Amino acid sequence: MTTDSTHDSSLQSWVESANDDACDFPIQNLPYGVCLTEDDEPRVCTAIGDQVVDLYELACADLFEDVHESLADAFDWRLNVLMHFGRPFWRQIRSRLSELMSTECGDLRDDSELRKRAMRPIELTELVCPVDIPDYTDFYASVHHATNVGSMFRPDNPLLPNYKWIPIGYHGRASSIVVSGTPIHRPNGQTRPSDDAPPAYGPCRLLDYEMEVGFYVGGTNAIGEVVSIDDAESRIFGMTLVNDWSARDMQKWEYQPLGPFLAKSFATSVSPWVITMDALAPFRCAAFERDADDPQPLDYLDSESNRKQGGVDLQVEVLLATKKMRDDGKEPMRLSKGSFSDMYWTVAQMLTHHASNGCNLQPGDLMASGTVSGPGKDARGCLLELTWRGTEPITLPTGEERKFLQDGDEIIMRGSCERDGYRRIGFGECRGVVVG
Amino acid sequence: MTTDSTHDSSLQSWVESANDDACDFPIQNLPYGVCLTEDDEPRVCTAIGDQVVDLYELACADLFEDVHESLADAFDWRLNVLMHFGRPFWRQIRSRLSELMSTECGDLRDDSELRKRAMRPIELTELVCPVDIPDYTDFYASVHHATNVGSMFRPDNPLLPNYKWIPIGYHGRASSIVVSGTPIHRPNGQTRPSDDAPPAYGPCRLLDYEMEVGFYVGGTNAIGEVVSIDDAESRIFGMTLVNDWSARDMQKWEYQPLGPFLAKSFATSVSPWVITMDALAPFRCAAFERDADDPQPLDYLDSESNRKQGGVDLQVEVLLATKKMRDDGKEPMRLSKGSFSDMYWTVAQMLTHHASNGCNLQPGDLMASGTVSGPGKDARGCLLELTWRGTEPITLPTGEERKFLQDGDEIIMRGSCERDGYRRIGFGECRGVVVG
Repeated sequence: MTTDSTHDSSLQSWVESANDDACDFPIQNLPYGVCLTEDDEPRVCTAIGDQVVDLYELACADLFEDVHESLADAFDWRLNVLMHFGRPFWRQIRSRLSELMSTECGDLRDDSELRKRAMRPIELTELVCPVDIPDYTDFYASVHHATNVGSMFRPDNPLLPNYKWIPIGYHGRASSIVVSGTPIHRPNGQTRPSDDAPPAYGPCRLLDYEMEVGFYVGGTNAIGEVVSIDDAESRIFGMTLVNDWSARDMQKWEYQPLGPFLAKSFATSVSPWVITMDALAPFRCAAFERDADDPQPLDYLDSESNRKQGGVDLQVEVLLATKKMRDDGKEPMRLSKGSFSDMYWTVAQMLTHHASNGCNLQPGDLMASGTVSGPGKDARGCLLELTWRGTEPITLPTGEERKFLQDGDEIIMRGSCERDGYRRIGFGECRGVVVG
Repeated sequence: MTTDSTHDSSLQSWVESANDDACDFPIQNLPYGVCLTEDDEPRVCTAIGDQVVDLYELACADLFEDVHESLADAFDWRLNVLMHFGRPFWRQIRSRLSELMSTECGDLRDDSELRKRAMRPIELTELVCPVDIPDYTDFYASVHHATNVGSMFRPDNPLLPNYKWIPIGYHGRASSIVVSGTPIHRPNGQTRPSDDAPPAYGPCRLLDYEMEVGFYVGGTNAIGEVVSIDDAESRIFGMTLVNDWSARDMQKWEYQPLGPFLAKSFATSVSPWVITMDALAPFRCAAFERDADDPQPLDYLDSESNRKQGGVDLQVEVLLATKKMRDDGKEPMRLSKGSFSDMYWTVAQMLTHHASNGCNLQPGDLMASGTVSGPGKDARGCLLELTWRGTEPITLPTGEERKFLQDGDEIIMRGSCERDGYRRIGFGECRGVVVG
C-alpha cells in the first residue's frame, strides 16, 4: 500500500465544510455511495464535507473524459459496475475526483449550473444500499469476541481448536441487508428458555447488535480459481460499517449443528458510504501480532506484505439512544470503542480463505468481519459480551437499564481513521432503531 | 392441492415422443427450463418428450395472447420474472401450454415455420441454470440423515434436542450453483486428518455428493412479514434436483461453531428443469408421520392441509459411473433410491419457518431439503452414510472400490413421481463429473 498526492494532508477543497478537522469526508476520503434522484433513480455519488456529489451528472458533463469515455454507464446504478473494474482504474477515478474537488480546480466549482444539478446537502439526500449484494459472508475474526462468547457457552474450552488456523465464517442472508436508517423489526422466532419446558414461537427477548466492519469485493474469479494472499488486496474495493443484528435466544436454540440462521437473517444494516482501500492506504498497519505459542498462518494465508500491512488502524464505536433518552434530550451514550487492528485475521486472509476452495467471488459480494471486540471490557462490540449474557446490566443516563435491546432503542455505529501527518477520515454512521 | 384437466392421464400430445410411458416429460409435466439460442440468448422453455420448446417464440407468435399481452418479456431471460407472478397466473400459462401441446390443438403443430424456430431436440440444446438465484438456503430435513450423521459424530446423542422442533437450515452460497453437466473441480482446503499433527492445505480427499430436492420461491414478502403455513404452498413455484457436493474432511475441521462453509461453497449442482407444483399436484401425500413420542409441530408450522397434503411422493435415485466403468462400456451403477415422502419436514414448513423471523424471500430463491435419506440402507443419499464414513466401501462392477469420490467419477441423480391413474412424470437428470 502506497500513498499518493490524494492523501496529502495540506490538500484543501473549495467545498468549505470539507476542510473542517472534525468532518468525516475531507477531500482525502472521497467515499462512494448511492443516492436517489428526485425521480428515484439510483446514482453513484461521493461525499465531500456536508455535500453529496452525483457522479453521473459529472460524467455526463464530460468531467471524467480523460479517465473513460462512458463512465456515466458505471454511475447510473449501484456500485456493482464500478466494482467490476480493477484497482488501477479505481485509482484514476479517485485521482480525478480529488482534482475536481480541490481548490486548484474550477471545472465543477465554477460551473454553477452543473453544481446545482450534481450537488446537494447530505442531510437532504436519500441514500440507499450502495450495492446490489450478490452473496454475503460473515466471519468471526476477533479472537477476543470468540474467546468471550466461547467462555460463556464452553467455560472449559472457550476457543475451538480450529480458530487459530482458519478464518471461521459462514454464509449469510443477502436479501435482508438494509441501509442505515431502516427500522429494524424485532423478529419472532422459536426459543427454548428452559430445558424443562417445550420451545415456543414468539418475539425475540434477547435482541442484540454486533459492531462489525465489512468489505466489498471487486473483480471476479472463475469457479475453481483461487486468489493468492498477495492478490487479495486488489480484490477489495472498500470498507463499510455493518450491524449484524442478532437474536441471541433464537441463536442459542437453533444454531447446532449448522450455525446461525434465522437469528441473523431478519436484518443486517450497512452504512451508506463505502470507504475505498485507496483512501485507507495511509492507515494500514501490521497484522495482529500472534502470541509466541500461537500457530503461524499456513502458507496460503501468509505473506510478508500481509504481515506488515494487512491490518487497518480503524477505530469503531457504538452508541445507544433509547426512546426515553431522546425524549429527555439526552445525547446518545457510548457503549464501546474498539479497533479493527485487534482482529486476529486480516481482510486479505478472509478473502483468500473464502476463495481457497475455488469459490467464485463476485463484484459487490459483502464480507463482514464478525464482531469487533478488543482485549478491554470497553472494547466489546455487542451486548452479549458487554453485559456478560445479561448478568451485568448497563445503566443509562436516564436511570434505565439494558441487558439487551428494547423497542425504540437506536444503535449508532461510527468509524474513523487517524494518523499523525494525515487528515482524519470517517466512515459516517450506521444507524437502526428497533421497532416492535 | 387439486388436480385439473392438465393431469388427465388420457391426454396425448402431437409430439409423439411425449406419449412414451418411460418419458420424463409427458404432456402432464410441462416443466420450465432456460435454453440458449444460437446467439447465446437465454430463453424460457418447456420440455415435451425429447423436444425443447422456446416459449419466447410462442409468445412472440401471440400464442399466449389470451393469458397475457406481453408474456414474451417474461420468457426473455431466466425464470425469475415468471416466478414473480402468482399461482393463478402460473396455472393459466400451464393450462394454455397443455392445450398447445395436445393432439386437439393445431396452433403450433400446424405452423411449421414456428415449430422450426421454437422447437429443438433436447439433446442438441444447451440448457443453463434456469434461475438467477438471489439467495440459497440448505435445510436438513431428513431425520434419517440427521440421525445417521449424528450417530457417527455423537454416538451417545445422535439427534440434537432442537431437531424435531425446528426445520434446521443454513444459508448457502448462491454464486457457485451450477447447472447439471458442469464439471466439478475437486476443491482445495484446510483439513486436519490427525489431532497429533497440524492442519494442512491441499486437495480434498473425502469428496461426497448429497442427493437433495430443491424448491424455488415465487412471489415476495416484505422484510418483517411472515408467511403462514397455509400461504406457503402458494409461494413455491416448483421443484428440482440438487447435488450438494460436500468436502467431508474440510467440513469436519471447519464447521464448528458456525456451520458448513467452504466444504459446500465450491459447487452445488441443480438439474435444468423445474417441475411446477401444479404438475406435482397428483403426487402430494401426507406429511411425515411422527412417532407417538415425537413433539407435534408448533402452531406456526402446523395446519390440517399440511398434515394431509404437505408431502410429495417423489422417488429419487443416485447412480455412479467411474471413468473405468465408462471406458469398459458399463452402465452407471445405482447407489441408492429414496423417497422425498420420508422427509421429517415438508416444503411448506421449511418456507414458513424461513420467513418466520420476517426474512424477505424473493422470486428465484432456492431452498434445498438436505440429503434425502430413508430408513433403509439402500435409501441413504450420500457416500458418508452409504459407506459409513468409509468403513464399508462399495464395490463397483469393474471391481473398483469407492469410499468417497475419485477424479473422473460421474454422479447422476434422477427423480420421478408415479401414482395409479396418473401419468408418471420425471425430473430429468442432475449430473456432474469430478475433475482434479
